[in-house]
Amino acid sequence: MNDSKINVRVAFQGECGAFSEQAALKLLGEEIELVPRPTFDSLFASISEGSANRILAPLENTLAGSVHRSYDLLLESSLVITGEVIIPIAHHLVGCQSATFDSLRTVESHPVALAQCERFFSDHPHIQRVVSEDTAGSVRSVIAHGDSSRAAIASERAANVYRGKILQRHLEDYRDNYTRFVLLEPPSQGETKGDKLSLMLELSHRPAALHRALVPFARRGINLLKIESRPIKGSPWQYRFYIDLQASTNDSKVVSALRELERCTEKVRILGCYPSFHVTTSANGHNNASTVAINKSL
Amino acid sequence: MNDSKINVRVAFQGECGAFSEQAALKLLGEEIELVPRPTFDSLFASISEGSANRILAPLENTLAGSVHRSYDLLLESSLVITGEVIIPIAHHLVGCQSATFDSLRTVESHPVALAQCERFFSDHPHIQRVVSEDTAGSVRSVIAHGDSSRAAIASERAANVYRGKILQRHLEDYRDNYTRFVLLEPPSQGETKGDKLSLMLELSHRPAALHRALVPFARRGINLLKIESRPIKGSPWQYRFYIDLQASTNDSKVVSALRELERCTEKVRILGCYPSFHVTTSANGHNNASTVAINKSL
Repeated sequence: MNDSKINVRVAFQGECGAFSEQAALKLLGEEIELVPRPTFDSLFASISEGSANRILAPLENTLAGSVHRSYDLLLESSLVITGEVIIPIAHHLVGCQSATFDSLRTVESHPVALAQCERFFSDHPHIQRVVSEDTAGSVRSVIAHGDSSRAAIASERAANVYRGKILQRHLEDYRDNYTRFVLLEPPSQGETKGDKLSLMLELSHRPAALHRALVPFARRGINLLKIESRPIKGSPWQYRFYIDLQASTNDSKVVSALRELERCTEKVRILGCYPSFHVTTSANGHNNASTVAINKSL
Repeated sequence: MNDSKINVRVAFQGECGAFSEQAALKLLGEEIELVPRPTFDSLFASISEGSANRILAPLENTLAGSVHRSYDLLLESSLVITGEVIIPIAHHLVGCQSATFDSLRTVESHPVALAQCERFFSDHPHIQRVVSEDTAGSVRSVIAHGDSSRAAIASERAANVYRGKILQRHLEDYRDNYTRFVLLEPPSQGETKGDKLSLMLELSHRPAALHRALVPFARRGINLLKIESRPIKGSPWQYRFYIDLQASTNDSKVVSALRELERCTEKVRILGCYPSFHVTTSANGHNNASTVAINKSL
């Protein structure tokens, strides 16, 4: 990051009060300008359109898995990953001020949020679940209508932003629920170095191609943290792979592994080398966040 | 499959006219009884509830990728994969009989279907996209309301079932669009053999664990066709893997690879060994379908 934080305009998907907004503030502090974007497509278009100079995109949730649209759009762009932030996700039930739990008939939220609160819906079968575009947007809509039979599932931040009433806390089935976001910038804005390396691979079509692609890292003891496959559109039953390694491009061992990898794959793209940054569950503000290695080898 | 086709009751997710229903008919013929289920959860509950003795579940689409809910529910169940069918997916614009293209204001469908028709929406920015639960269900709803400003994106079969009018054909961005479904049964109903083997793996947490798990297959020349990772719920940053191999448990080479695999992983579950079955784009009926190997090695 070359410019001072005062000039940082970060686009995120969703409305004010979204988990993405919260993640951007945790990573970059309160001085940044936040640019809400309604869809993933408009999010990824925001730098070229001039409305932002950074993007914060969710890549993965520890319950729901990878956010495929982010992976696909990252690949279509020329952006690089320059940072990462992981925040705990807690889902609360938010209604308008006149609502009580007993007045509720429908509960709305983003499908992923609804899916993370299965137990709540099976415990309360009379409450109908309603799919919406966005967690924070559901709160905004519920409050705007002032209907005490409706509530939304969203963050505490969204409840505060729209002055909703929290009717029940922690609806999520698993407390150990985190979302990992990456900060994206045009490559010209500066390159970062860190302890995490993300790559995209396209393999040649021959037996054991994936096994061969892992050899350069395995035999140098470089930890693989994640592997994700995505179909190649227009080429049925062919996949590309996204891999995360505990590795820095400053390390000569890693540089030689990458050189070896290039020889045994069709295509390699370095998506970024960046420091990992994890906000612990107990953290209430930006300054409490800590940098920890998520070090579960594959 | 031990019983005759006349007793086969196959549950699928969606309403009459769904792609899943079409896939079930292609795989098992017209004599089967079809059991529509509204959600994935109710689909996977249908055998234990006694409403069906088979389930047909989508596992993967060549544009959208894996259907994670199916993978997760398959693992929670004790069902085994006994068959597979791959059908081409074509999306048509279906309105009520009084509708014309110019009368349309909103187009509704399942989010995955909408996402596969991006070009249509960017070419017609005045048409609003509306998310619904289901492709065929959207057609039913549009026809029931008789509103000429609404249309749905769904299959030709759904248009026929609900007597809708096809306003435009082939809205999909890529013609090469297939969905792969698997047939699931309780293990007691009989074991199948075939050319495709699906496994679930949980790795030990040590460097190069994934690489080690691929060695038994790579060094025996057994083709890996697909690998999919899913987070382990409640264990952040830990993943399990689903792999598909071109392999039969009848083959002694495969049996010894599986034995070796068990020694280097925490857990291995054989999800099924079954024949692959691909319906070609030109096929109009069940009898035209052919069995082909999808043989793109990883």
